[in-house]
Amino acid sequence: MRSLNDSTRGRVLFGGDYNPEQWPEEVWPEDVRLMREAGVNSVTLGVFSWARIEPRPGARDFGWLDRLMELMAGAGIGVVLATPTASPPPWLGARHPETLPRDEDGRTVWWGSRQQFCPSSPVYRRYAAALTEDLALRYAGHPALRMWHINNEYCTHCWCDGTAEHFRRWLRERHGSLDALNESWGTAFWSQRYDRWEEIIPPRRAQYMRNPGQVLDFRRFTSDALLECYAAERDIVLRHTPDTPVTSNFMPLWSGQDAWRWAEEEDVVSVDIYPDPKDPLGGQYNAMLGDMTRSQARGPWVLMEQAAGPVNWRGVNHPKPRGLNRLWSLQSVARGADAVCYFQWRQSRQGAEKFHSGMLTHAGEEGRTFQEIKRIGADLARLSPEVTGSQVKAEIAVLHDWDSWWADQQDGRPSSRLEYPGIVRAWHRALWESNLPVDFARPDHDLSGYRLVVVPHLYLLGDPAIANLTGYVRDGGTLVSGFLTGVADPDDRVRAGGMDGRLRDLFGIRTVHEWWPLDAGESVECDGFRASLWSEELELSTGESVAAYRSGELAGSPAVVRDGRAWYVSTLPEPEALRGLLARIAEGAGITPTLQGLPAGVEAVRRGALLFLLNHSPKAVTVPVPGAYHEVLDDRPVDGPVELDRYGVAVLREVTP
Amino acid sequence: MRSLNDSTRGRVLFGGDYNPEQWPEEVWPEDVRLMREAGVNSVTLGVFSWARIEPRPGARDFGWLDRLMELMAGAGIGVVLATPTASPPPWLGARHPETLPRDEDGRTVWWGSRQQFCPSSPVYRRYAAALTEDLALRYAGHPALRMWHINNEYCTHCWCDGTAEHFRRWLRERHGSLDALNESWGTAFWSQRYDRWEEIIPPRRAQYMRNPGQVLDFRRFTSDALLECYAAERDIVLRHTPDTPVTSNFMPLWSGQDAWRWAEEEDVVSVDIYPDPKDPLGGQYNAMLGDMTRSQARGPWVLMEQAAGPVNWRGVNHPKPRGLNRLWSLQSVARGADAVCYFQWRQSRQGAEKFHSGMLTHAGEEGRTFQEIKRIGADLARLSPEVTGSQVKAEIAVLHDWDSWWADQQDGRPSSRLEYPGIVRAWHRALWESNLPVDFARPDHDLSGYRLVVVPHLYLLGDPAIANLTGYVRDGGTLVSGFLTGVADPDDRVRAGGMDGRLRDLFGIRTVHEWWPLDAGESVECDGFRASLWSEELELSTGESVAAYRSGELAGSPAVVRDGRAWYVSTLPEPEALRGLLARIAEGAGITPTLQGLPAGVEAVRRGALLFLLNHSPKAVTVPVPGAYHEVLDDRPVDGPVELDRYGVAVLREVTP
Amino acid sequence: MRSLNDSTRGRVLFGGDYNPEQWPEEVWPEDVRLMREAGVNSVTLGVFSWARIEPRPGARDFGWLDRLMELMAGAGIGVVLATPTASPPPWLGARHPETLPRDEDGRTVWWGSRQQFCPSSPVYRRYAAALTEDLALRYAGHPALRMWHINNEYCTHCWCDGTAEHFRRWLRERHGSLDALNESWGTAFWSQRYDRWEEIIPPRRAQYMRNPGQVLDFRRFTSDALLECYAAERDIVLRHTPDTPVTSNFMPLWSGQDAWRWAEEEDVVSVDIYPDPKDPLGGQYNAMLGDMTRSQARGPWVLMEQAAGPVNWRGVNHPKPRGLNRLWSLQSVARGADAVCYFQWRQSRQGAEKFHSGMLTHAGEEGRTFQEIKRIGADLARLSPEVTGSQVKAEIAVLHDWDSWWADQQDGRPSSRLEYPGIVRAWHRALWESNLPVDFARPDHDLSGYRLVVVPHLYLLGDPAIANLTGYVRDGGTLVSGFLTGVADPDDRVRAGGMDGRLRDLFGIRTVHEWWPLDAGESVECDGFRASLWSEELELSTGESVAAYRSGELAGSPAVVRDGRAWYVSTLPEPEALRGLLARIAEGAGITPTLQGLPAGVEAVRRGALLFLLNHSPKAVTVPVPGAYHEVLDDRPVDGPVELDRYGVAVLREVTP
Repeated sequence: MRSLNDSTRGRVLFGGDYNPEQWPEEVWPEDVRLMREAGVNSVTLGVFSWARIEPRPGARDFGWLDRLMELMAGAGIGVVLATPTASPPPWLGARHPETLPRDEDGRTVWWGSRQQFCPSSPVYRRYAAALTEDLALRYAGHPALRMWHINNEYCTHCWCDGTAEHFRRWLRERHGSLDALNESWGTAFWSQRYDRWEEIIPPRRAQYMRNPGQVLDFRRFTSDALLECYAAERDIVLRHTPDTPVTSNFMPLWSGQDAWRWAEEEDVVSVDIYPDPKDPLGGQYNAMLGDMTRSQARGPWVLMEQAAGPVNWRGVNHPKPRGLNRLWSLQSVARGADAVCYFQWRQSRQGAEKFHSGMLTHAGEEGRTFQEIKRIGADLARLSPEVTGSQVKAEIAVLHDWDSWWADQQDGRPSSRLEYPGIVRAWHRALWESNLPVDFARPDHDLSGYRLVVVPHLYLLGDPAIANLTGYVRDGGTLVSGFLTGVADPDDRVRAGGMDGRLRDLFGIRTVHEWWPLDAGESVECDGFRASLWSEELELSTGESVAAYRSGELAGSPAVVRDGRAWYVSTLPEPEALRGLLARIAEGAGITPTLQGLPAGVEAVRRGALLFLLNHSPKAVTVPVPGAYHEVLDDRPVDGPVELDRYGVAVLREVTP
Repeated sequence: MRSLNDSTRGRVLFGGDYNPEQWPEEVWPEDVRLMREAGVNSVTLGVFSWARIEPRPGARDFGWLDRLMELMAGAGIGVVLATPTASPPPWLGARHPETLPRDEDGRTVWWGSRQQFCPSSPVYRRYAAALTEDLALRYAGHPALRMWHINNEYCTHCWCDGTAEHFRRWLRERHGSLDALNESWGTAFWSQRYDRWEEIIPPRRAQYMRNPGQVLDFRRFTSDALLECYAAERDIVLRHTPDTPVTSNFMPLWSGQDAWRWAEEEDVVSVDIYPDPKDPLGGQYNAMLGDMTRSQARGPWVLMEQAAGPVNWRGVNHPKPRGLNRLWSLQSVARGADAVCYFQWRQSRQGAEKFHSGMLTHAGEEGRTFQEIKRIGADLARLSPEVTGSQVKAEIAVLHDWDSWWADQQDGRPSSRLEYPGIVRAWHRALWESNLPVDFARPDHDLSGYRLVVVPHLYLLGDPAIANLTGYVRDGGTLVSGFLTGVADPDDRVRAGGMDGRLRDLFGIRTVHEWWPLDAGESVECDGFRASLWSEELELSTGESVAAYRSGELAGSPAVVRDGRAWYVSTLPEPEALRGLLARIAEGAGITPTLQGLPAGVEAVRRGALLFLLNHSPKAVTVPVPGAYHEVLDDRPVDGPVELDRYGVAVLREVTP
Repeated sequence: MRSLNDSTRGRVLFGGDYNPEQWPEEVWPEDVRLMREAGVNSVTLGVFSWARIEPRPGARDFGWLDRLMELMAGAGIGVVLATPTASPPPWLGARHPETLPRDEDGRTVWWGSRQQFCPSSPVYRRYAAALTEDLALRYAGHPALRMWHINNEYCTHCWCDGTAEHFRRWLRERHGSLDALNESWGTAFWSQRYDRWEEIIPPRRAQYMRNPGQVLDFRRFTSDALLECYAAERDIVLRHTPDTPVTSNFMPLWSGQDAWRWAEEEDVVSVDIYPDPKDPLGGQYNAMLGDMTRSQARGPWVLMEQAAGPVNWRGVNHPKPRGLNRLWSLQSVARGADAVCYFQWRQSRQGAEKFHSGMLTHAGEEGRTFQEIKRIGADLARLSPEVTGSQVKAEIAVLHDWDSWWADQQDGRPSSRLEYPGIVRAWHRALWESNLPVDFARPDHDLSGYRLVVVPHLYLLGDPAIANLTGYVRDGGTLVSGFLTGVADPDDRVRAGGMDGRLRDLFGIRTVHEWWPLDAGESVECDGFRASLWSEELELSTGESVAAYRSGELAGSPAVVRDGRAWYVSTLPEPEALRGLLARIAEGAGITPTLQGLPAGVEAVRRGALLFLLNHSPKAVTVPVPGAYHEVLDDRPVDGPVELDRYGVAVLREVTP
């Protein structure tokens, strides 16, 4: 079957989005010269080219793209070819206003930016399919073609009447009958019972909180509606090129697409990662998204977009200090990436993204940024033979689930301060800082290969997931769960007792009397640490209180609970405490960190036969490493401590004496 | 005539909203068992049952409600029966889109939540009336029926074209002629003169500040339009059950309904009170709303909704610490409530309010919350014979008025920091902390029964009100007024001189040169205290400066002014200072606190023959009480200091030796 | 030709907006009495009188205005007569809904406030022209008429379909062809290419950032569309009164009108200035707007509106402390105003602006405010013969440009913290605090008369402007520029290298590697000062590093750069540092302050033969003045130090011995 290996062919992909339609053709040979100088071996073409290829309905202008494909083939640069369906031309909205999205308030979303299409619109889908067909037909078998890139960052939603019809079809399939839907959504409350399918609409502007079941199903539907768009285009290109892998780039930690479900439909999993250079934990963020994407891909993955310098969509857009781009690029490789790509090759001079950096910035080839790009290109060339296709091994699984996220992030909850991705991040950070490698998994995945399963916070858990978790512990696994987990079933119906009874049994909890969410700036004292965000009033059965609350209304009652190999953490401990707790639990489960005794800020990761040392601090450090190694980037033997520059990286291959 | 006594029949009502349509009928007998265990004697049925009773236009399904009414009658539990017109079924909006509200921006407010009806819609009103008719016809004379509950928390507003027509009819009646309307609204300014009635619309989105007269009249109109909806349903049920009292529950401190005017149309005044458990002055808030509601009812009132634990509509929703639910429940009784009810009996497992606590929470009958509910039920059973129907006496009237509130809270005022309910609350707090019992009154009410009249802040005062106040002082009463009072007439026209001349004469003020609103975080030094929010540049005539400003531009000029029995406070003194000032004025008017020398946080209130002692602090305290008493809750004699637990309550009946 | 002299006739205009239609006619003679008492010699009539004059389509009621014009003529008070087209009557929107603006989200902007007209609406324009015609016809030759005031604070924008058509006509004229437009807007990016003119719309609500060229052109268009409205009415009145000067009052520092371009179409430049009385730099703000308006007028100008006390549109509206109104009024005269006017004469008692102060406040003629007004009237009478028509001389030009502002203030920029007017203000403040008089100029103006040109921040610079600046330095001028200047061309296309190459050559900068915007609350250490907001990573060629960064990632690299007479400041130094730097550069350019060694807060300005000393502090000060003078306001000789009260003013005429 198709896989990323068909695209990499043994070389880590290095390059980025290339939008040469912005420039006069005289610039193209210059681009190729500089690409080769930088070691670029892959470009993504066509992402925003719909209006160029089809300037008016049904027209086709492929000449410019033909010339580009030839140019790339001649230069030995592979092409990731995009279907340009993310950004319809103005004529589509002007001639077919029903293709324009309507937001929750009924407002039309106009052209003049990008992504102004209703995913449920048959007209949009028809035009997109026709264009995809012609594109695939034309470039099938082209020597430069390495991968298909369907659309771009699927994210548009719509609340229009056409979407309502589509939503109803989806609901009929999911629920079968109106009675089942009414039961699932709990419409008996607030007099919301639906008497006819035609009465159902997307959750639009309302007087007060909307029905949670309706909102949850609409989020499921929108992910599925976009997936239909993707699958339709994928099926078209595969008819023409059955051996070329297909992907669509994810926005990570974005709630709109269930990446687990999407990944099943892709040959290659690719992602766009933009840590904030000013974030002191940007390296952790990058690591986490790498871990997530690798887990979705079940192996090597594609970093489809990152920025060589600043982006232009934050309030304040910081450049990357010298060395940081290289550090994070190699960190992605360490965590399984077989492609290190950027948005975009040459920084725009016009348009909305002209202040988003490129590999080649406005400062040009003498600019600091391009100099670093060249160094990264050289690094990747050296690494390629040793890493491509190799695996990262983890004994810990962190559970992460879109259904739970969607149910969790609604109005009318105990606290509006719970931010699902932030909680996942806090738990990942604790493991990352201990150099404990992790995979991510969905709660119904097979977990038997892991020694430890970590649940940061899964508000919604279906019966199979609960059976999976209890069975996992019964079969000898160690499980640690954060607060407010297992509360709701897949209809967002609160399970009897507030937390599912099987989970209460697992953790040895008799009763959850009350949840005590904490205010902003509030913390609570526990045995040996402070905690924030959340606390719970628990009464234990067989569980043991490992740490109790020591201040506030809950003083004396259990905060961290353990029943054998099952742990429950009813609050959010401060970072050092959570790190210590998880390290202790991991140790108890027989897991050892990649390396121990590292200086602060130094990360160690193994991929295949290689050990990556990554210095996330702006100061040089010395890392003691036991054993004898060969450093791959500098191609030199290492026997003794390794010196790492600010943001420095060493890649070590063990030397067997 | 009908009164609350017809519903209580000598027992304080205890119970809550009961929405059993959310649960399988097997759960109902369990509900009854637990209700009886908790001493519940009243439930509110039908609030959100429209779609259940009328699943499609004109259909009727009363069977389930028949069974419930029987069940309640059999268990000796009275029913407050609601007309289910607050939440129309989806079919109403789907078949009659003109019943859906439009907001100020023209956006449709859709179904999927609740209350999606335009109060001016004839179609909505026709369906609501027909359903009310059938409901009243069916349950007239039913032994369980104790009270009618019309709709629920009337609050929906609309800016649609149908509302515009209705508004114009209301304006014709109020103003008679277009000339009078143009004069009243001051349309000569900004070229707003209306030439034909058809030109008048509700105040919708505009370029800049809207006409204040139009906005004020629209607020009057919306309260009246909702009152029409209420009155129509009330008249229907009274035709069928002329002896059953009627109410509609208020949201207190909500500006949408003029509760004074509404109360005149009700047999029983009921209210929903939700203090924030985290608010250290939650007890004061609860006391104030009790005082307001009692004053509107002119006697005992109904606490229709409160929460046994957390609500789910704040940013962070805190549970009630152990004892607090009981404390606030008994405090309401102390301040005149003859009903202590909750939203809702059994906490939902589905829908938008599943995280709003119930009397029976997700934790079930073993949960801490239900245990406290049972204790409250027992307390009320003991208190019932001694309190039901009895009165709370006050010698102080605090003036409060919706017209003034509506005129005050608009754009284009000297300061956007003046929050009317907050100012009322600051003044009430000062009196509450001194254990000085108060009633609330409207400025045109008969005040002759009071020794002291307190005006926190009444920007708008009509001529009758001004005559009432000046006459009150002339006749020997003491009056103290806060700042920015008596500025506007009922058309929101500034009275000559900025403050009405009769009031300036009353307080001995010659000229109000300027208002000096204070910024957030800013305070001003006065003789003996600091003050915030507001200050004024006054020139006195006969008045005496009791305290002067001592910092800022106004240093040396009068802050607190007195002319005989009339006092004027031109700023907002810090809490202790306002408390001291009002205590001094009250003392001068011959008023003594309920009890003196109480520990901090302890409130004393008399109702009928009983003295309530309420400990608002989470620490136990000892309260010295002169005389000999019988403690009613514990049924024991008290002779000497009373020990009160954290949030503890004692109810004392004097023992005549 | 027509000029302000035709209106002043040697007397500084003193008065304000007069809206007597709000009052019964009995009040008018009282108004005249008090106007005369205060020395008022000018009133603006008719601004909001459309509905009064034309109560229904085509009707005319001029009687009341005839009487007012006579009254004013009789009292010797000149009239600035307004076309009342800023605020259409309700009937216009009710009968012609297409005249109502639609906002970016498609929401209708209704009547009930003011300015509810779409500037592109032919219906609006037709009604406005007809009314203007009749008004001009009626009052042409009237002895009271002194000036025409077209409309009021032109500011309404619209995004409706009619506007779209108008926008397309404007674009056709600007760009000629669709190809040119596509090139200018860079529509090759994001697939935005326009195939037909009909596809082009105003920039409406979109999924993400909008096309910057489209947004920039729309801002140019909206300024021009309003200017068309103005010019149409101006042309009408000039046909009837070719000798009466015409103006339209600007809102200063408002981005909607390009004041440079508008000023070219006016006989008199007038402006509304509302410094915040609480702003410690309110005097600087007032000075800057005076400098701007004088520069646009190229001579004396009209302060059309200011407030005698508080306004009513801030969050908290502060009165003016005693003396401040007089100080700022005389400051405006010092900086070239030949008119000191207010909104409005008599404070309203009704309507949206009743809490906006007037010359005659609610406190009446005994009020502190009116007393100060009388004093100002007397001052101006004394000053009139000595100042009217005279000039303020400056050797420094500060560059300011709307095109650059419009391009700069968009989404997707390196930092959303750059606020263009705030940066201009920071630089003006540095010069104002050193008593260095300045003019403002557009970057393509003739600068040869200045010794120093200051560019606070001009993101966009066209080729003529760049040639102008480089030529200016080549010809011996000194130039100092703030950061992020010369980045974009007039299509908002980033110039090669990030900063234009000719400017890099001018400043001796080889490469701009990266921009490093700073976060809120962040600052960076430089040699001798701290700086904030922005920093840059520069590599110099011929330039010299005058001050380097000393902290952060840029430590050691140049912050302030100089190449001969050209200076570049790549960050925003703290106020004292910027003041010191500019003082040093000015000194180097041979410029000396108006006076030196002044006490803090004292401003010195020369106008014609007069030296104004203005004390901006609330404390009295003594000002050493070399030489012998005659003080004009008090009509007394001065020989030695001048005593200035809190907010005091002295106006000195040098006595030649």
